[in-house]
Amino acid sequence: MSHPGATATDRHKVVIIGSGFGGLNAAQTLKNADVDVKLIARTTHHLFQPLLYQVATGIISEGEIAPPTRLILRKQRNAQVLLGDVTHIDLEKQTVESVLLGHTYSTPYDSLIIAAGAGQSYFGNDHFAEWAPGMKSIDDALELRGRILGAFEQAERSSDPERRKKLLTFVVVGAGPTGVEMAGQIQELADQTLRGSFRHIDPTEAHVILLDAAPAVLPPMGEKLGQRAKARLEKMGVEIQLNAMVTDVDHNGITVKDKDGTLRRIESACKVWSAGVSASPLGKDLAAQCGVELDRAGRVKVLPDLTIPGHPNVFVVGDMAAVDGVPGMAQGAIQGGKYAAKLIKREVSGTSPKIRTPFKYFDKGSMATVSKWNAVAKVGKFEFSGFFAWLAWLGLHLIYLVGFKTKIATLLSWTVTFLSRQRGQLTITEQQAYARTRIEELEEIAASVKETEKAAS
Amino acid sequence: MSHPGATATDRHKVVIIGSGFGGLNAAQTLKNADVDVKLIARTTHHLFQPLLYQVATGIISEGEIAPPTRLILRKQRNAQVLLGDVTHIDLEKQTVESVLLGHTYSTPYDSLIIAAGAGQSYFGNDHFAEWAPGMKSIDDALELRGRILGAFEQAERSSDPERRKKLLTFVVVGAGPTGVEMAGQIQELADQTLRGSFRHIDPTEAHVILLDAAPAVLPPMGEKLGQRAKARLEKMGVEIQLNAMVTDVDHNGITVKDKDGTLRRIESACKVWSAGVSASPLGKDLAAQCGVELDRAGRVKVLPDLTIPGHPNVFVVGDMAAVDGVPGMAQGAIQGGKYAAKLIKREVSGTSPKIRTPFKYFDKGSMATVSKWNAVAKVGKFEFSGFFAWLAWLGLHLIYLVGFKTKIATLLSWTVTFLSRQRGQLTITEQQAYARTRIEELEEIAASVKETEKAAS
Repeated sequence: MSHPGATATDRHKVVIIGSGFGGLNAAQTLKNADVDVKLIARTTHHLFQPLLYQVATGIISEGEIAPPTRLILRKQRNAQVLLGDVTHIDLEKQTVESVLLGHTYSTPYDSLIIAAGAGQSYFGNDHFAEWAPGMKSIDDALELRGRILGAFEQAERSSDPERRKKLLTFVVVGAGPTGVEMAGQIQELADQTLRGSFRHIDPTEAHVILLDAAPAVLPPMGEKLGQRAKARLEKMGVEIQLNAMVTDVDHNGITVKDKDGTLRRIESACKVWSAGVSASPLGKDLAAQCGVELDRAGRVKVLPDLTIPGHPNVFVVGDMAAVDGVPGMAQGAIQGGKYAAKLIKREVSGTSPKIRTPFKYFDKGSMATVSKWNAVAKVGKFEFSGFFAWLAWLGLHLIYLVGFKTKIATLLSWTVTFLSRQRGQLTITEQQAYARTRIEELEEIAASVKETEKAAS
Repeated sequence: MSHPGATATDRHKVVIIGSGFGGLNAAQTLKNADVDVKLIARTTHHLFQPLLYQVATGIISEGEIAPPTRLILRKQRNAQVLLGDVTHIDLEKQTVESVLLGHTYSTPYDSLIIAAGAGQSYFGNDHFAEWAPGMKSIDDALELRGRILGAFEQAERSSDPERRKKLLTFVVVGAGPTGVEMAGQIQELADQTLRGSFRHIDPTEAHVILLDAAPAVLPPMGEKLGQRAKARLEKMGVEIQLNAMVTDVDHNGITVKDKDGTLRRIESACKVWSAGVSASPLGKDLAAQCGVELDRAGRVKVLPDLTIPGHPNVFVVGDMAAVDGVPGMAQGAIQGGKYAAKLIKREVSGTSPKIRTPFKYFDKGSMATVSKWNAVAKVGKFEFSGFFAWLAWLGLHLIYLVGFKTKIATLLSWTVTFLSRQRGQLTITEQQAYARTRIEELEEIAASVKETEKAAS
């Protein structure tokens, strides 16, 4: 559809799907290219996902890690940002269909960079999501903030020891970086920030359980660092359960199957799911049209130049793409987005060689914070842990955060949290504090119906 | 109900309802009193309501103005904070009933301070609320932030000039301090922060209308200051419509009745309601039991010592109380809460005179910001406006904000916003960006049903 305010040009049209690391970096790389860029995303912000757990645990505000994409790109005159949920890509007509509040839009492209990311995977049990939210969006983080703090509030008012125990048991499923960080931060929140602020419960008695079906913590970081992170978490009071597979999640807790096949139950009101990812459904949309293969997580098995077979103008980057040796982390998406954008820029300007150089991932390493003053990091063959790894983590995250004011605000929030035990963002809305009323009521009704049925039979 | 963890004492039991200015100040005044304090509130935070409009317009984060009440009172060992919605006060049994997630609690009191505040009043048209949220809670402010920014996003994608105009028209109903501040800030957000970040619309063309059924802006501040605020707003581009009564609000706009009785329509997607207050329904609960009178806004007509007839141990303070000469502002609640707490403290310690000294309000003045660098203020007979009034506003709000870290964070946010045109808290959740889908769909279905009916008849 045409816009009266926009100048129609004959310039090469690049459409980018997604405002995460891949999409934003692709757009920025095209800054001085002779192209028209349209970035279509489902959220109005660019999310700095590695710090999402700090929003969930009250250290920083959502504004610090999720500035509006259009303000980041304001001065890039060849770029426009459009809010919308992309529902279909038409490879033949070369258009992208997106929906916003009941209106459907069709946007033509000459080149397309798909960076729609991945959501949480519940391995076929999507109904777990209601009881164990993932950690993928600002919505998730704020919802979890409400649930974590809400559980302490409810426990304070309860005089039933079993209910209180259930409310003070927090289960984090998935011992990857996000799971490790969440478990550590819930424990620190309870032990440090909330300590002494309740009268009927002792928040330091909160029981945080980190569990994983795999036999190790932080598997991609290697055995040594995994062990260090595990030891540190255990010293903080986090209970780690490995080789433990979740078979069911409900309102009151989870069911776990141990390696020997025994089933056991953990009563817990607040559960966090960080166990797996599932690529954007746009991958299936592509597969249906061009026969490209998907891996088990729904990621697109792209060619060495990150395109799909038969469509050298359609790139898939970031968490949506399956590329050997490229982890599903910020760096993979950043580098993929930049690679695709550079190729387009060169080909449009006619300065590129005939044969494309394949995408090559440069491993800058990976890291995860375990607690205040403590992180683990791996750069190539080098492995660090402890205080200096934590300092490196601090510095790198500040460098990569988008915007000067954001960096300053985050530095201030960190100073407060790390030097005192305070946290500045513990506000929850009434909606969050009471959202589960209806759910609890439904559960209670369901339970009483069951009992009535039992009594009748 | 008894709590195993709590020590039962024979101390005088003070129950406080509400964590706003009245409730929090009452609790803090009882710090060294020989009493047990229980503060029961519907939110987990103390809300600094005068800055709520800055959360709604992206200047500050919710954490800066809504720290958890229990953390503020952590070190006050005689005080406990309980989350719950108070549904009933039993004056005979001297108990307070509260509900949290389906559980009902009964809390006995010897003295009771009711500071449950006021909600927005739609003057009998509560269905307006869905289309024109009030400005009373963090939930309201975040919802409005989503609606304001969402309207610009939708306008950017629309090619229908009428729809675009509707989306870029913002109506603020009620020209009191909150209305004036919201109107000014929406205009500044559009003109300064968002300028240049869209490609199909010009956000500076956003049309902000501030309207009121009364003939003046900021009536309690007097004619001169009202005129100044009006002139300043008009210079900024805000359209002010006085003597304009809202008769209907729906999804697409509002209907207004002018002084001469003519009805007219303003098409507007985003409406804000700051036109009136309605005291907590607990007032009615009291009236039904002890026959105390309520005023038109549902406020309790208390005795000179802020108690209700026949119950010298039950105080009503803040926005819930109707006291001649005491405005429904922070200072009224703060002074009322402190007065009640001091009386209780003295009477428990046996050092009070036999006859209570009536509550006396000390008028510290009132103020409202109109825009960056510009405020109006009235202290006794003195009236100020312009830059120095704005500086005074700045300083006073920083002094009254609770917590050192909060003050620093807010000062930083203000520095950014006032010295640049940036705002650090423009993040909206997906829920906020898309919440109206369902509503729009329902509206469309309703409209099509109507059309079908018309065609059939």
